[in-house]
Amino acid sequence: MTSQTRARAAIILAAGQGTRMKSPLPKVLHPVAHRAMLDHAIDAAEGLGCERIVVVVGTHSPEVRAHVVKRLGEAAIAVQDPPLGTGHAVRAAEQALSGFDGEVVVTYGDVPLLKAADIEPVFNADGVTVIGFEAHDPGAYGRLILDGETLTAITEAKEASAEILAITACNSGVMAAPAALLFSLLADVRNDNAKGEYYLTDVVELARKGGHPTRAVFAAEDAVMGVNSQAELAQAEALFQSVQRDFFLAAGVTMAAPDTVHFAWDTQIGGGTVIEPFVVFGPGAVIEGGARIRSFSHVEGARVASGAEVGPYARLRPGADLAEGVKIGNFVEVKNVKMAEGAKANHLAYLGDGSVGAGTNIGAGTIFCNYDGFNKARTQVGAGAFVGSNSSLVAPVVIGDGAIVASGSVITEDVPADALAFGRARQTLKPDAGAAFREKAKAQKAAKSK
Amino acid sequence: MTSQTRARAAIILAAGQGTRMKSPLPKVLHPVAHRAMLDHAIDAAEGLGCERIVVVVGTHSPEVRAHVVKRLGEAAIAVQDPPLGTGHAVRAAEQALSGFDGEVVVTYGDVPLLKAADIEPVFNADGVTVIGFEAHDPGAYGRLILDGETLTAITEAKEASAEILAITACNSGVMAAPAALLFSLLADVRNDNAKGEYYLTDVVELARKGGHPTRAVFAAEDAVMGVNSQAELAQAEALFQSVQRDFFLAAGVTMAAPDTVHFAWDTQIGGGTVIEPFVVFGPGAVIEGGARIRSFSHVEGARVASGAEVGPYARLRPGADLAEGVKIGNFVEVKNVKMAEGAKANHLAYLGDGSVGAGTNIGAGTIFCNYDGFNKARTQVGAGAFVGSNSSLVAPVVIGDGAIVASGSVITEDVPADALAFGRARQTLKPDAGAAFREKAKAQKAAKSK
Amino acid sequence: MTSQTRARAAIILAAGQGTRMKSPLPKVLHPVAHRAMLDHAIDAAEGLGCERIVVVVGTHSPEVRAHVVKRLGEAAIAVQDPPLGTGHAVRAAEQALSGFDGEVVVTYGDVPLLKAADIEPVFNADGVTVIGFEAHDPGAYGRLILDGETLTAITEAKEASAEILAITACNSGVMAAPAALLFSLLADVRNDNAKGEYYLTDVVELARKGGHPTRAVFAAEDAVMGVNSQAELAQAEALFQSVQRDFFLAAGVTMAAPDTVHFAWDTQIGGGTVIEPFVVFGPGAVIEGGARIRSFSHVEGARVASGAEVGPYARLRPGADLAEGVKIGNFVEVKNVKMAEGAKANHLAYLGDGSVGAGTNIGAGTIFCNYDGFNKARTQVGAGAFVGSNSSLVAPVVIGDGAIVASGSVITEDVPADALAFGRARQTLKPDAGAAFREKAKAQKAAKSK
Repeated sequence: MTSQTRARAAIILAAGQGTRMKSPLPKVLHPVAHRAMLDHAIDAAEGLGCERIVVVVGTHSPEVRAHVVKRLGEAAIAVQDPPLGTGHAVRAAEQALSGFDGEVVVTYGDVPLLKAADIEPVFNADGVTVIGFEAHDPGAYGRLILDGETLTAITEAKEASAEILAITACNSGVMAAPAALLFSLLADVRNDNAKGEYYLTDVVELARKGGHPTRAVFAAEDAVMGVNSQAELAQAEALFQSVQRDFFLAAGVTMAAPDTVHFAWDTQIGGGTVIEPFVVFGPGAVIEGGARIRSFSHVEGARVASGAEVGPYARLRPGADLAEGVKIGNFVEVKNVKMAEGAKANHLAYLGDGSVGAGTNIGAGTIFCNYDGFNKARTQVGAGAFVGSNSSLVAPVVIGDGAIVASGSVITEDVPADALAFGRARQTLKPDAGAAFREKAKAQKAAKSK
Repeated sequence: MTSQTRARAAIILAAGQGTRMKSPLPKVLHPVAHRAMLDHAIDAAEGLGCERIVVVVGTHSPEVRAHVVKRLGEAAIAVQDPPLGTGHAVRAAEQALSGFDGEVVVTYGDVPLLKAADIEPVFNADGVTVIGFEAHDPGAYGRLILDGETLTAITEAKEASAEILAITACNSGVMAAPAALLFSLLADVRNDNAKGEYYLTDVVELARKGGHPTRAVFAAEDAVMGVNSQAELAQAEALFQSVQRDFFLAAGVTMAAPDTVHFAWDTQIGGGTVIEPFVVFGPGAVIEGGARIRSFSHVEGARVASGAEVGPYARLRPGADLAEGVKIGNFVEVKNVKMAEGAKANHLAYLGDGSVGAGTNIGAGTIFCNYDGFNKARTQVGAGAFVGSNSSLVAPVVIGDGAIVASGSVITEDVPADALAFGRARQTLKPDAGAAFREKAKAQKAAKSK
Repeated sequence: MTSQTRARAAIILAAGQGTRMKSPLPKVLHPVAHRAMLDHAIDAAEGLGCERIVVVVGTHSPEVRAHVVKRLGEAAIAVQDPPLGTGHAVRAAEQALSGFDGEVVVTYGDVPLLKAADIEPVFNADGVTVIGFEAHDPGAYGRLILDGETLTAITEAKEASAEILAITACNSGVMAAPAALLFSLLADVRNDNAKGEYYLTDVVELARKGGHPTRAVFAAEDAVMGVNSQAELAQAEALFQSVQRDFFLAAGVTMAAPDTVHFAWDTQIGGGTVIEPFVVFGPGAVIEGGARIRSFSHVEGARVASGAEVGPYARLRPGADLAEGVKIGNFVEVKNVKMAEGAKANHLAYLGDGSVGAGTNIGAGTIFCNYDGFNKARTQVGAGAFVGSNSSLVAPVVIGDGAIVASGSVITEDVPADALAFGRARQTLKPDAGAAFREKAKAQKAAKSK
């Protein structure tokens, strides 16, 4: 990146209704890689070192406002009401930026793949800078008329001649300028057009008329894609995933079928880790190098150390913390449990809220009963312990180091170290009662089917 | 659609052996989107308002005959024996259509993607109408020689000149005509060809010779694709899924990875529902808007209300009926159970045959013991109840509103409202017995490995 | 294949460091379809009838050496130290082949898709034979200058004229020659090049100079692809899977979504079997015709007989042996258990180390407690038995034919045939205690949240 010479601010436009999404969730809150599109845009602004970030919201989506306030505070909100075009939206942010005299970039809450590095080149300039892209299919995009790097005009497709329509350099809508210049130009933008809207794009022509430099810098078409429908949202997700897959392959992660592995925006995976087909990462997963994530696993908010093995069919939820050599096997859910080195839970178990000591074996069917319908409590199992199959550990409860819990036990009281705990009935037998039951049940069945 | 002016009938050819499928299942019973190809063809005929539907079956596949009889009755069966070509097959249906004097369309049991709307244009005509398609790779298809909409000839590829081979308008094999005309023309079809078969296609030339109008209407190539191998079956399935994915995206369903979601022919999903990667729908799923179906879920014959959340790793089977706000979590199977508003079963459970009241929490590892090896019975759990982890509810049994079942209990008798039921042994301890067991087990292991 | 006329040997080069893999696992041990790339290369050599196979290893990867020794013995090892090029690597194998006077083929440990049939044409020749391929994008590959089948030169891309660069016939690096000729030519290879390495390729020019025949035979580009990065490994896996999918479709296996089914190198599946979307096979799976493998299943080292049904969400591990009509349902793991005809385990169970008799029903939540933390033992369940839900069978234990185990039982002693065994407490009730608990828990919750 070039170095930053002036203060920076970002205005993120997020006031659109997003009706084409046909969803009650506001468009910019739809996620790409488990993160709201708007947050991707804010991430980029933060990555650029913007000291002020203003999000322009509409009045129709209080959820968007609440989302921004939660992340950036009330000062980050500007309201556009009613919606009268992009130029009008940017003007709505003027007051929130009062006193700011650095450079401002205008970005979009529905352009989730545009990263700080893509935007960086718009800064450190005196006039108006637009991000362009080479369009595969330029269609209705505005065309950039360039003279070298100088942007001489942006021509809307519907007003363009055949010659201009043949241009593939298009306008992404992202634009930057010194704050004072931007707002002074915007004040002159008129709405004498078919829709009666104020277009941000008009700033370019006004700048040229005023003798200010205008130029275009370029980003990849994928990076500037806007999302207006569920299909485009899925396309953005696919592009994101494709980049992440290539990234992790290049980092030394082995994936037999990378197309079947889905990452979250913040997934971390070290080289030498193996990820089998059909794995989903939710947010907050940190996988160290040399781990193995087997097929049909779902990992979110969990840490997996080197040499640990997860799955198939393992679900790690937030707070699952697996030390080296831990094994979490099939149909096992781990939530908010710290598993020490070499601990194992290989089959059908729910481990929630607690800790398991080093080398301890949690038998199949074990449940940490952490919830009584109202309160949650912790189960602490020591090191070198053995919890027999189908046991229920009723929290709060402590199982000592080296203790053994017999299969099928319900444990409601602490078990001291090295003790053996039973919580089950003695076996009793009724000879021939099995056969008798069978005959009776068969008779019932026959009676029913008559 | 154009309006229907005359009575309609359909003859569906389903007598082929399908040997290239290399499967004991008759070809036309192979499913696309969980529905037999033959049923897709019958659906189209019904969608067209056909008052008579005749399926021509061979003698080699009694399963096909049985399948048709079950759906349409004996009157829908015509038998072609031996197989002497498509013209011969259609003639086999003549008797079954005796007395019918409307229009007849001939379709195919192995063309699963052709919908009523695709076929509709063949009707309301006096002569012979063929459905053509623009072939991407015309290859061995018969070429349609057209003069405007008039079909002047169908030329088989092997008899075609280079000029005719360059034609991409091809014959789908679907054809319609007034019943009397069709059977009178068929009576004149000859089998003086290399294979000694009677070809339905010959009807076109005979019609022209007799001065009857002949024309072609067009359908998409994908819609008329025939299935003759497992690879083509998979291709038809892929086309079907692709259309469904686009349909649900357009309807406002959010899917991060639509290519990993597989629908059944009758899946219903409302807008605003989120479907995560790797979800499979079997037949009969109805998902209301605003639900969430998480990764690795399998949903069949179930209703999921708005605001309900399913999965990851949830299996909903027929009769699972989830009201608003219900949560079914990982490794939980629900079959024939009505879950009232806000009820939850978040972990490792089998709920079969019964009901769960509003707000009730079903603990991890709970089993509805609905089967004794012969008979099935129901488990009814009231509202606001709490079933502790690893409990077994032995049906028939009723758990009252607000009742609590202690973890690890086996419940064989009804539990009144607000009562607390135990069905487990008291915990007992043997101090140091854990350590003693460990030493003994280690010694055994050492002895074995010698 | 042509018939073998002379003794054959293979030299497999596996001494590369594979640093671009960025993995602690040596490159040639990375798997394709669950089998190390090096083993694929050895398989091909064995498939060619090579009586001597020598693997050239580096000193940096003792794991590779150990892997080869385990499969082929010490005699198969040749060490290249230091690495001075491919010609040098082949010379390193000379001593290991002393006394051998047949034909030698040089192949690569990182070319996993090249099969015996692809290599076969290099044999039965007197001079030097190279395997070429038609490159889609020839790029930096050496170009083959051909005069008919005669190979007149191999020109490296960086030394090639534009005319030669236009040639798409490229050198795969696989080469064969009579042993004596090969090593005598190699003795003359010089390292007077930029890298100071000895190139195997130079053998061709030396052969021509010496008047020996030189020729090229061709393989598909996919077959000769080399793997140097995780991305290329994933690509090789994808190519392998694509071939397998087509193979099984052609064999009459029904797969609605073949792209979502992942096979191991040795997976066997009979025609008429149905495999639903999202299925993973590990090594050693044998599925007979007419079985059904449902979605989200993982099958490894298991046999599934005709008419058996597996999944969804079933995990079959090594030694799972399912006879006809067996059903293994959701969230069930089976390891080293023989299930006789018609036995069923439909829900949430772990069956490890044992046997289940014909027609026996294993209830939901059943665990075979096969492990005490040190030793494993077997659970034997007879025919026509019924094991109630949530039971724990503590091995070693025998359940007789027709016996019934009550739900929720812990069974530690054998159960005779036709007996009914209980191992659970009697249910007790505390009226209104549920409501009392609820009030107390609510109060606690309220206190906590203050």
